[in-house]
Amino acid sequence: MGFRLIPKDESFFDLFEQQAKILLDASGVLVEATERFETLAANAKRLERLEHDGDQLTHELMAKLNRTFITPFDREDIHQLVSSLDDVLDLMEAVTERFILFKIQQIMPTAKEIAKVIQQQVQEIHRVMPRLRHMKHADVMPYCIEINRLENVGDRLLRDAFAALFDGSPDPIAVIKWRELYELLEMATDKCEDVANTIEGIVLKNA
Amino acid sequence: MGFRLIPKDESFFDLFEQQAKILLDASGVLVEATERFETLAANAKRLERLEHDGDQLTHELMAKLNRTFITPFDREDIHQLVSSLDDVLDLMEAVTERFILFKIQQIMPTAKEIAKVIQQQVQEIHRVMPRLRHMKHADVMPYCIEINRLENVGDRLLRDAFAALFDGSPDPIAVIKWRELYELLEMATDKCEDVANTIEGIVLKNA
Amino acid sequence: MGFRLIPKDESFFDLFEQQAKILLDASGVLVEATERFETLAANAKRLERLEHDGDQLTHELMAKLNRTFITPFDREDIHQLVSSLDDVLDLMEAVTERFILFKIQQIMPTAKEIAKVIQQQVQEIHRVMPRLRHMKHADVMPYCIEINRLENVGDRLLRDAFAALFDGSPDPIAVIKWRELYELLEMATDKCEDVANTIEGIVLKNA
Repeated sequence: MGFRLIPKDESFFDLFEQQAKILLDASGVLVEATERFETLAANAKRLERLEHDGDQLTHELMAKLNRTFITPFDREDIHQLVSSLDDVLDLMEAVTERFILFKIQQIMPTAKEIAKVIQQQVQEIHRVMPRLRHMKHADVMPYCIEINRLENVGDRLLRDAFAALFDGSPDPIAVIKWRELYELLEMATDKCEDVANTIEGIVLKNA
Repeated sequence: MGFRLIPKDESFFDLFEQQAKILLDASGVLVEATERFETLAANAKRLERLEHDGDQLTHELMAKLNRTFITPFDREDIHQLVSSLDDVLDLMEAVTERFILFKIQQIMPTAKEIAKVIQQQVQEIHRVMPRLRHMKHADVMPYCIEINRLENVGDRLLRDAFAALFDGSPDPIAVIKWRELYELLEMATDKCEDVANTIEGIVLKNA
Repeated sequence: MGFRLIPKDESFFDLFEQQAKILLDASGVLVEATERFETLAANAKRLERLEHDGDQLTHELMAKLNRTFITPFDREDIHQLVSSLDDVLDLMEAVTERFILFKIQQIMPTAKEIAKVIQQQVQEIHRVMPRLRHMKHADVMPYCIEINRLENVGDRLLRDAFAALFDGSPDPIAVIKWRELYELLEMATDKCEDVANTIEGIVLKNA
């Protein structure tokens, strides 16, 4: 990109990578909470702390964005990226919180599978993030494509789980609870896709 | 607007019009699916294909937006217009998909009426779209006003349907299903209004 | 900020303050509607009228934004501020409307408390708004912090109310209604926080 009169602030990238690391840890906690029911209470607390750490980082990033004159890429794209990363984290935390609030006694098998899909998406987010520094399209695309593919996998799982929820003579209260839980899980996979789309857009504009 | 050194890319308008045409077809399919219950399965499949075509077009528009230096109007307004058109299409498709997932046996009369309201809104969107090229306020306003009026008609229909849902001794499972279906239909009429408001905003800025 | 060639349009601030005043009135009406059940019908009508006044003002602000070349602060921040103020108003109105649509016979004590939290948040919004003219960080921060603190108070109230909803052998129809009502109340406290965050962001950028 040649000579720059005013150096761009590279520390934005550091903060994005820190945020991706928090998401990665959180996704591991979510998977463990769904797979080993006896860990749910402890893991819900861990996720609450991770979400708090993420909030701090988000706040730091937003404050930095407001103070910084020259940003490494478009202001609104930074805002978009920060927000969607934060949303993924919030949604993972909301899921374990709801498991507890709803006094869920057993995690549906599909919920476990979708938690693993979210973890895989977050792993790709964590891998692609350092590559954002170089703004090379070919370099980030495989990760973005994989995140999108995983979102489709999650979609199909959720569609089936959702249909199954209404089969037989369902318990209305259970339907209300699981419909909300599936909705949160679906939103998490969607938000991971938003992260991928934002990254793709940033790289296309800045390549 | 006089002489231009760099010609604006007119092909954005072509793509918007193609997108409006897909929406028009989709709204016809939605109305038929609600009015002739025996066509539901086939029409849900048709809507799925139209939604897929729309997704391709949206992706093409977004990629073009990221590559193009001089756009016919503000970048964020193009983004906004593309997104809200895409949302209308997604919501129409979500409605027929839910009819099938929920194994709905009979379409409520109000749902049929609202589907027709959405179709009328989409017809106005399809009519106003070619007029966007000329950026004349008086030229697009009647369509935008009509789309807003139709949104109010839909709102009143939905409010009544929603209240009726809770009357008597309702079946909780049916309430859950129809509340979600009405919500999707309402979101579709809202998103048509967003399209109209975006178009009005664009023309006001560029007139 | 020294000498300006083109004076900034101060009337935006007048309109923001008018909007905050409408919100203040609306929050009083909401609290009265929840505390004195016999006033619900009359207060729902009053809120509908206030929401209508707010819509007019929002429309005026948006039109002005599209016509004005030099705005007192970033165009997208004005848009953001106007939208979130409008959302708070819409949500307060939606709550009383739903009380009526759902034929609610008794307002849950927590709903009354949250209505008061929203009123307190709106009081802070109303107090901070005139301070936006001077763009001094220290001047607006205490109000923004208080609005955020109140959002946390509301969050805890809602979490408990939400958990209580599923306790014992709940009536599914009541669960559906109150879950939606709590959701709307929560969204209102969230949107007040959005207003505070937007104001903080504006001041940080323009201080």
